Amino acid sequence: MSYERFNIEQLDAYTPGEQPTAVDVVKLNTNENPYPPTDAVMQAIRQVTAESLRRYPSPRAATFRQTAAEVHGVTPDHILATNGGDELLRMAVTTFCQAYSYAPLLPGDRGGLGETLPTYSLYDVLAGIHNTPVVKVPLNADWSIAADFAEQLNDAGCRLALVVNPHAPSGRLETVDTLRAIARAFRGVLLIDEAYVNFAARDTVDLVRPGSDVDNVMLLRTMSKGYSLAGLRFGYAIGHPKLIAAMDKCRDSYNTDALAQAAATAALRSRDIAAQTWAKVIAERMRVTSELRRRGCEVPDSQSNFILAAVQGTPNAREMYQRLKDRNILVRYFDQERLRDKLRITIGTPAQNDALLAAWDQLTATRA
Amino acid sequence: MSYERFNIEQLDAYTPGEQPTAVDVVKLNTNENPYPPTDAVMQAIRQVTAESLRRYPSPRAATFRQTAAEVHGVTPDHILATNGGDELLRMAVTTFCQAYSYAPLLPGDRGGLGETLPTYSLYDVLAGIHNTPVVKVPLNADWSIAADFAEQLNDAGCRLALVVNPHAPSGRLETVDTLRAIARAFRGVLLIDEAYVNFAARDTVDLVRPGSDVDNVMLLRTMSKGYSLAGLRFGYAIGHPKLIAAMDKCRDSYNTDALAQAAATAALRSRDIAAQTWAKVIAERMRVTSELRRRGCEVPDSQSNFILAAVQGTPNAREMYQRLKDRNILVRYFDQERLRDKLRITIGTPAQNDALLAAWDQLTATRA
Repeated sequence: MSYERFNIEQLDAYTPGEQPTAVDVVKLNTNENPYPPTDAVMQAIRQVTAESLRRYPSPRAATFRQTAAEVHGVTPDHILATNGGDELLRMAVTTFCQAYSYAPLLPGDRGGLGETLPTYSLYDVLAGIHNTPVVKVPLNADWSIAADFAEQLNDAGCRLALVVNPHAPSGRLETVDTLRAIARAFRGVLLIDEAYVNFAARDTVDLVRPGSDVDNVMLLRTMSKGYSLAGLRFGYAIGHPKLIAAMDKCRDSYNTDALAQAAATAALRSRDIAAQTWAKVIAERMRVTSELRRRGCEVPDSQSNFILAAVQGTPNAREMYQRLKDRNILVRYFDQERLRDKLRITIGTPAQNDALLAAWDQLTATRA
Repeated sequence: MSYERFNIEQLDAYTPGEQPTAVDVVKLNTNENPYPPTDAVMQAIRQVTAESLRRYPSPRAATFRQTAAEVHGVTPDHILATNGGDELLRMAVTTFCQAYSYAPLLPGDRGGLGETLPTYSLYDVLAGIHNTPVVKVPLNADWSIAADFAEQLNDAGCRLALVVNPHAPSGRLETVDTLRAIARAFRGVLLIDEAYVNFAARDTVDLVRPGSDVDNVMLLRTMSKGYSLAGLRFGYAIGHPKLIAAMDKCRDSYNTDALAQAAATAALRSRDIAAQTWAKVIAERMRVTSELRRRGCEVPDSQSNFILAAVQGTPNAREMYQRLKDRNILVRYFDQERLRDKLRITIGTPAQNDALLAAWDQLTATRA
């Protein structure tokens, strides 16, 4: 006998990228920053006292919110701190999307989630847990968002749109004007997932600053990628205070801990140091992109810390993934429409990227 | 215009106990352990490397689960690590309770949450966020659970029962047999919230060990109280592997961070040291209980790190709460049925408890 809800019983849980424990693996599969967090972060962690662990932490991460507000030119009421970006996404689904008491859902069920196809695969899992309908609008051939995206979501009664920008897994960056137009046209909340924004040429904070002409936009930020703190679990939302206040009601009472609050605050304050790593990753992204293009691969311009490389001929993408893995090089393969002939490759250090390119050459040498 | 779901818009969010920043407050309001975490915990935190923060943490806290399994005589499949006990409670509601697409709920809506009245106030907030019905069964006059508790929950179609044991705010400890009988009779999942069990004479792990005759029981444990780590946010479930597997599907992909995993593991391993603080708290609980009884207060026997003291005459409980606060002594007052004439007082250090008793005498001196 099963005790869980019907939709949970049927759910395929999220599959995170592999996290090998071996140290000699060239790990280019889960988009971590290849450089360590700043010394200021490690120092902040070491300065947390036993007394501050004994007591409950600041429920809303007051110091972090004040710091983030200063960094982004907003007020603390625009900021919500979360236990990683994952928690922020889950809270958005909980706060804004309709949940149904039966499964499978019926055609015509409204109040759900709208997204592009493809996108970050976690979104569908979160919708499945909440039991809310999902509307998927295919991206154009160049990975840009369909012109009628907002209209299709409105027609289906979506309450939340999740758009990752730069896009995963293509790396494409949409313009602020495109996203503003979607926000204006969409009747629900537009959550722009800026997980990779530190590697991009621009962000969309203008859409959420006081004085913005749209009130339905929220941005997701995470310390996992740009700030080299995937192990810390800290993310935050920047958005209209009324959206933040609604999300805040769905927050676990003390959702971020004293250590993570201290570390994340130190990370934001030392962002100029972290930015030096972003510049290195961007330079390497350009190098790896042109190296792979020179080898005949189609690689769209990426504004992120990964690239999506099409694999033509033999070995095919899935085989290539496996053979790279046999050589202790991990990249990501997605068994999905439009992605089956491609690999998503995280940008590593120059040495890691060289290892990838050398293995690539060996594996494709027989083609010539 | 509001964008959030109707039930979220109507929701009164959870009110945590006050967390003053002043250092001279005698803080007896949120049930922290008055003694610091062990040195082993602080050392474990200082040993976490930059490299382990750069990478994603173990998604299921593998080392912690192994350690907890050894401590409790179960397998790692019986253990689920969570971002504080709060997350565990929320995940249980998400996993087992029905969610509805309209609010307010209708009489006859089934699939909800069953609880005692009174109980930990967070439970109702979690039900409100999920939009699931709540059935409240009043406790008997001696704070014991009503004989027909499971029957009432079955009649209402509840899928989850939340029972805090030792009970909050009375401190009463139910017998294992009583809880086993409820589990046998109840057709849903019984979650026994053992947040305060480190201060009690016994736990109910027997109900979830391999070979138990019930398959619908899960226990909640937290590092916040006994282990002096409220600032860390770490809890865990011990339960039948099929319940743990169902809950695991609803977990945020990496719900506990590398620092918290290391600290919580060290805390469990150094539990003999923490147990010395539990003995001190228990001794003080007995002293404060008899001191207040000697002053004419009705105080039920508590097996927790707090007591519930009835306040007779003038000043009444609410006034007493305020006047203690004016003297920098924080206790907890609940404006609820059966609790309006009482104060919940966390057991502190001997000096803190003396300060409370001295203030109590001053405030009640005019009665004589």
